[in-house]
Formats: sequence, structure tokens, C-alpha cells
Amino acid sequence: MGAVNSSGSYGDDSPIAAFATTPGGGALTLIRCSGKGALNLAEKIFSEPEKLRQAAGNIVLHGWIIATNEKIDEVLISIFRAPKSYTGEDSLDISCHGGGAAGKGVMAALRAAGFRDALPGEFTFRAFMNGKLDLTQSEAVMELVSARTDKGRSHAIGRLSGVLEQEINAIKQQLVEVLSGVEIFLDYSEDEISANADEAAGHFSGQQPVREILARLRALAQSWSWERIYQEGILAVIAGRPNAGKSSLFNLLLKEERSIVTEIPGTTRDWIEALISLDGIPIRLADTAGLRESLDPVEKIGVERSRGLLESAELILYLIDGAAGITDEDQAFIDELQAAHHTPLLTLWNKADISPLPETGGDCISISAKTGEGIAELEAAIVKTIQARLNTADDQAMSAAASLGTVRQKNLVEAAAAALEEVLALAERGQPLDLIAPRLREAVNSLGEITGEVSTADILEEMFSKFCVGK
Amino acid sequence: MGAVNSSGSYGDDSPIAAFATTPGGGALTLIRCSGKGALNLAEKIFSEPEKLRQAAGNIVLHGWIIATNEKIDEVLISIFRAPKSYTGEDSLDISCHGGGAAGKGVMAALRAAGFRDALPGEFTFRAFMNGKLDLTQSEAVMELVSARTDKGRSHAIGRLSGVLEQEINAIKQQLVEVLSGVEIFLDYSEDEISANADEAAGHFSGQQPVREILARLRALAQSWSWERIYQEGILAVIAGRPNAGKSSLFNLLLKEERSIVTEIPGTTRDWIEALISLDGIPIRLADTAGLRESLDPVEKIGVERSRGLLESAELILYLIDGAAGITDEDQAFIDELQAAHHTPLLTLWNKADISPLPETGGDCISISAKTGEGIAELEAAIVKTIQARLNTADDQAMSAAASLGTVRQKNLVEAAAAALEEVLALAERGQPLDLIAPRLREAVNSLGEITGEVSTADILEEMFSKFCVGK
Repeated sequence: MGAVNSSGSYGDDSPIAAFATTPGGGALTLIRCSGKGALNLAEKIFSEPEKLRQAAGNIVLHGWIIATNEKIDEVLISIFRAPKSYTGEDSLDISCHGGGAAGKGVMAALRAAGFRDALPGEFTFRAFMNGKLDLTQSEAVMELVSARTDKGRSHAIGRLSGVLEQEINAIKQQLVEVLSGVEIFLDYSEDEISANADEAAGHFSGQQPVREILARLRALAQSWSWERIYQEGILAVIAGRPNAGKSSLFNLLLKEERSIVTEIPGTTRDWIEALISLDGIPIRLADTAGLRESLDPVEKIGVERSRGLLESAELILYLIDGAAGITDEDQAFIDELQAAHHTPLLTLWNKADISPLPETGGDCISISAKTGEGIAELEAAIVKTIQARLNTADDQAMSAAASLGTVRQKNLVEAAAAALEEVLALAERGQPLDLIAPRLREAVNSLGEITGEVSTADILEEMFSKFCVGK
Repeated sequence: MGAVNSSGSYGDDSPIAAFATTPGGGALTLIRCSGKGALNLAEKIFSEPEKLRQAAGNIVLHGWIIATNEKIDEVLISIFRAPKSYTGEDSLDISCHGGGAAGKGVMAALRAAGFRDALPGEFTFRAFMNGKLDLTQSEAVMELVSARTDKGRSHAIGRLSGVLEQEINAIKQQLVEVLSGVEIFLDYSEDEISANADEAAGHFSGQQPVREILARLRALAQSWSWERIYQEGILAVIAGRPNAGKSSLFNLLLKEERSIVTEIPGTTRDWIEALISLDGIPIRLADTAGLRESLDPVEKIGVERSRGLLESAELILYLIDGAAGITDEDQAFIDELQAAHHTPLLTLWNKADISPLPETGGDCISISAKTGEGIAELEAAIVKTIQARLNTADDQAMSAAASLGTVRQKNLVEAAAAALEEVLALAERGQPLDLIAPRLREAVNSLGEITGEVSTADILEEMFSKFCVGK
């Protein structure tokens, strides 16, 4: 993407441009431009400068991008006038032809006209700075772009529409009320205010509301364990002896699960991995069948890699060859896995169509990777195992209206909760209000930082620089 | 992309939708919709149905896509009202968030609302049927999307803006004048018209204009040999003995040539290939250094693959290790290559920085892959070799205002030229006008077929089905 006018930093309002779609694929390529004077600069390279100058906001113009008297591409330009735009600045979206060359030509013309390349996340950064989005909404933009399943999308959309911001603000409001009672007491002397006997004596009386606030914060923190899984997925590894049917099961799960999201983008791996979605949970399913299991010295590397994969697994599907029964080798392997990793493990009795699970089969799940028998039960068991691991088998946390979307938010929620726990502990020990008040303020600040009410340039730059360019 | 409402065929005007950008990459995803009732259907899933209903054309609305009471995504919808749209129908472009999930959700909502998946090229097909584009312009849309270099883009843009259509129509006009003189004679009897002595006698008198037309058609046909190269590129293979510096040269050419277009999308290959652009000519540069050159039996496969690659090469860069000089092995290899393939071959004397090309070095090009010395000369020599091969070292054909963009066009131009050559031959032999007239009509029809004035449903469907979806 070259770097003619690449200098610039978050926080200026100079005209910026970036590909908003990947050039190369698809019929069209979209280039986003924003900033002070963006529309005037665009006039210089558009075949209809007068129309552009006179256009109201939210208007689409048809014409040609022209540079040094040459037609570069035929385009549609959507015009947005401040403050009614994504960034809150004058902006334009240029819809060029797809493939590489047209978009590159238009981008070069924009640079020559005076636009600089946008920094990662710079459009959203400007939207935040201009009050179009709070921080939870800004983060939701990126969560949405990286959502892997429909449930992930749905939660991100909730945050983008302000559900989390509202919950945080409501909690903060509750907390500010508690704090202001305390502040009033500290600002004025005892003799002036004496409505409340406790506070008149310099004691904290807000335990009850603080406990309620804590419960709300804990529910939010709890939501993160699910959100993390919706965002990152679970690594489930299929293991078992040779010929147990690992590849058949892998293929069957891929085929059965119609909502396959995408193949894991492939650096060369020694195992096969694909992403499936069960109940909206993205599951990275790995088949170790590609790994050599022999004891041949050359093939030991394969075995080691297989063990490495099992170590990072969050769920192991151990496949028994039903035709052979549970061998000593199987039992040793299962025991070893459970002793070493504490990873949830489901034991599957395969080939149930030709060799049914015996009464003594214990808690094996009976399946046939060949006929598809038992696969629905297996899928349900996988979901249940993940739920159990999170200790939220009840659907409450999963379906909470407001949920956290980032580690940053989760850390701040936990910081606020920790401060409030200290408040309760101090109050318990009868400590004076001037020791309690700073902890309450700390909690308010942490909540303010979540929405971006309280923020520093460093934190913002760190946050937005993780975005993709064009956002 | 599922297939809920996938039935449908080219030529109906039912509402269609398709991704116009590749979902998954980039900050935004664009979905294109068009057809009868498209705007009404969209109202059903848009948070601002009233605004959509009342919007004039070329207006952008902000809102949410909503399905079964759930917010699917926050979007911008550009509204186009017939006939002022790409297709000439009521249309909308929906700009969703990027990543996979948001676009998929919106696409599912569109299908549920009654849109069907667009067929490949169906938007452009409709644009053609509704008279928004002629066939040369329609084809230029796809040429533009697949253009690999800026020159390729520039030529496609020329055709998209109608340069080729105008040239074809001008030629056809000239031809129709010749034809109408003949038709008039055939329609009326000799005694009615006698302005021209030849025609009065039933002889053809249009040789001179036909010769002029033939020259214009030949210039067009000649332009195709260049256009094909702009579109498909040239495969240039770097060969030479081990340690001659093949990889260094490969990397240097990639680095020097700032306008690298893209890496060749990679199926696993045994050689490295990258696309560079020299004078706007896309050159697929292949480095055989990855191929084992030893005589070890196991490595023979590598040697065979190397030879296979050399056989399909359109240009060979044979690298001499200057430090070692031209060895017998080099000479044998060069002789063999030239005897076997007749492929243009440039001999490069590498390591000129430490071992200059001797006087006796013949027509070697002296370079140093280490210092970059001689690389500009090498690049010029590559371009010159390609020009020489095309017998158009003069820049005429390269810079012709109108050039052909597809094999289809080239075949029709050649068919028209062949018919006119027959006209001249018949006239030479003094054959009567009623034998000459059908050949003239044939040429006119061929030209009409280029722009789509004359066309059949079969031809159109065949043509547009090669387009990408979303175009």
C-alpha cells in the first residue's frame, strides 16, 4: 500500500484514506476517506467536481476518478458531511472496481491529492474522539469484524448498539449515588448534616447498594468467560489408536455441522484443523490422524507433535475402536491424558453399527462415524462439557443482555469489583469514611474507563492500533 | 453462501443479491441487490422502512438490518432508482461490517426477505440487457477486475468508457456505407440506378474503402497479442547451474520492481513464483533454485520438474556464474534449451562486480545480483525481447487508442477481416454483386456481434457465466 503520505498520528484531523475491503477479491473495492478538507481534496480527482462541491450529505455520485488527465476508474462516491458520518468528520466512501489494479490506481490518486494512509483503527478512533461511539462500542466494531459465529456477531452487535455501555453507566450511576452520600459528609462537617445516624458518626451505611452493585459486576465478569470462548473458540482434539476412525469422525462432524465457519487459515501444519460451530460456540476441531503414531525413530517427531497438540487441547475426544474394544493401550493413554492435563475428555465408542457398546462400557458415548449414529448426542455432550467447565450450565450468563467483549473491559470490571470488596471489608471493620471514599472513587474511575469517559492518550493509542486498517 | 433462493436464470428481473466484496477480509463487506421490487423487499428488514420508501435515488441511509426482531448489523444502504443504477433496475448497495459473520447474517436476512442469490455476472448481464453497457464495456468490467498491472487497468478502463465500442461502430458505419451501395443496386434493377459505371454493370467498386476497413481491423487484431500479454502475463524462468546466483537475482528483481502486483496465489509448488510488472507487462518470474539439480536418483524428480517449467517458459533468463565463467555444462544446457524450445533466452553474466564480463563474452548481459549493477539494462532487455517476439517493436500497437480485450472480440474481428478478404478476392475475379453482398453482410454481423447489437441468448449466457458473482 505504499507510504507516500504515511506520516501522521492518532488525534489529528488530517485527511486519511484506506482500503475498507481487501483489494484483489470480489467485484468491488471500497476505499474510505475522512478528515478536514477531505471533500475538497476529492474534487481535484473527480470528474464531477461541481456536483461534489454542491452535494448535500448522504448523497451518492457517479463519475470517474481522474489523475494526470487519465481516467483511473469509474466509481460511485458516497458523500458524508460532518457531523453526520461514521467518524463525525467530512467523509467519503469510494466504490471502485474490484481486483487489484483499479483500487490501487484510485488509492495512488488519493495520495497524490493529499490524503495520507490511515493508521490501524484510525476511523473508529476519530469516531470515538468525536463522540460518535463510546469505547465499548468502538471495541464492538472490531469484535464484530472478527466474530466467527452468528452468536458472536449477535453479542458484538448488542454491544455496538450500546447495551454494555448502558449497563456500565447504570451501575456507575448507582455507585455515584453511594459515593456522593459519602462525599457530602466529608465535604461538610458532622454538625451540618445528620440525617443519617451512621454517617453522622462517620460510618459507612452503603453496604446494601454496594452488594447489589457487586453482584451486577460479578455477573458481567462471569459473562467474559463465555465471550472469550465465543471469540476464540475451543480447541477440541480427536485422539485414539490407529484405525479407530479418527478421520471419519472428523469428516463427519464437519459435514453434519452445516454452519462451518471457515477453515483455519493455513500455515503448514502436521495435523488437520477446521472450525465448526456448535450452539454458536466456535470449535477448532483437530484431527491427529495426520500424525504418525508408529514407534519408528524417524516418526517420533510426529508423536511428539501429537502430544504437544493434546497439551493445548481444551477438550479431548478419545476414540475407541469398538471392533477391538478398550485395549490396555487405550486405557493407559486415557489414564495418562487425565493425569497429565486435567483436560475434559469424552470417551467415544466408535463403530457401534457393527460392534455395539457393551453394558460394561461405562460412560462411553456410543457412536458410528460411518453411519452417523450418536453424532447428535456427541455434539450435545461437547456443548454440555464446555458449559460444565465454565460452571455456568444454567443459561443465565450465556444469555445475559449485557456481556463483556474484551479482556480490557473484564480487567476493569474486576478492578472495580475488587475496590468494592475492599469497601465492604473496611466498613465491616468500622473504618472511617475518609478511608472508604478513595476506594469508591477508584471503582467509579474503573467503570468510567470502560466506556472511555476516563482515558489517556496512551491507552487509546494502544487500543486502536490493534484494529485493522480501514476501520 | 447457501442456496435458499438459488433458482432463477439470466434474463428475468427478479430481485437478486450477492456479496460484491469477499467476506472475511477487511473492515467492510458490500452486498449488492437489484431487481423488480428490490427496494420494497429491503424495507422489510431495514430499521427505517419509511425513509427507504420515500428516499429518492442516489441517497445513503443509515440504520440496522433487522430479522426476526434481532439486530443483525448496523449498515449504510445506498439506494438507486431505475433507470439510474448500474443495472438500470431499482438497486441497493448494503455496506455491512467486515469479517464473515455480519455479511452472512445480512445475506441470510435478504434471502429470507425474498432475494435470490445472483448468478455469476448477472448484474452486468442486466446492465447490458437494459442498454447501460454494450458487450465490449461489459467485458471490460471483468477485464478491469482481473487487471494485474496499471497498464492493464488503463486499457480496460478505455474499453469500459467506450473507446472500443466507438472504434467498432465507426468501422461498421464505413462498411455499412459500402454495403448499402451494393444493396441498392441489388434491390433495384440496373436501369433505375446508373450513377456508377461499375455497379451499373453489376461489378463491385468498393475495393478502396474495404482495404481501409481491413487495415483498421488488422490493427485491432494486432492489438490483441499485446492485450493478451497484459492480461495473462509472461512466464519468465531463471535457470542456471547451482550457485550461479539465481535466488539473489530473483529477489533483486522483486525488490527493484516496486510495482509488484501480487504473489501468485499458492498451491504448493516446487519452485518460487512471483508477479512483477515491467513497463506494465505482468511477468510471472519463476526461480528454479528450489529445484534440486543434483544427479542423485532421489532428486531426479526435481530435475524433471525443472525441465517441465522450462518447457512452459515464454522467456528464459540463463544465469552464468561469472566467477566460474561459461562452463561446458552451461554451453550444453543453453544449446539444448535453444534447440528444444525456441524460447527467447537471455544469457546473463552474473557476479560482474568481482569478475567482469570478458571481451569474448558475446551477447551476455553483464549484471551483479549482489550490487544491482546492470539490472536496469536487464529489465530493458526483457521488455525488448517480448516486443521483438510480438513483432511490434514499434509502440504503435501498444499505444493504440482502441484495443481488443477478449478472445471473443479478436475472433469476431478476424472473422470480419476474413469475409472482407473474400470480398476483395471475389471482386478481383470480377464476380457479381450478389455473390459479394453476403460476405459484406457477414462482416457487418461479426462487428455487430462484438458490441452485442447482434447476439443470441446462448452466447450471452456463455459469456456472462464466466464473470464472478457480484458483478
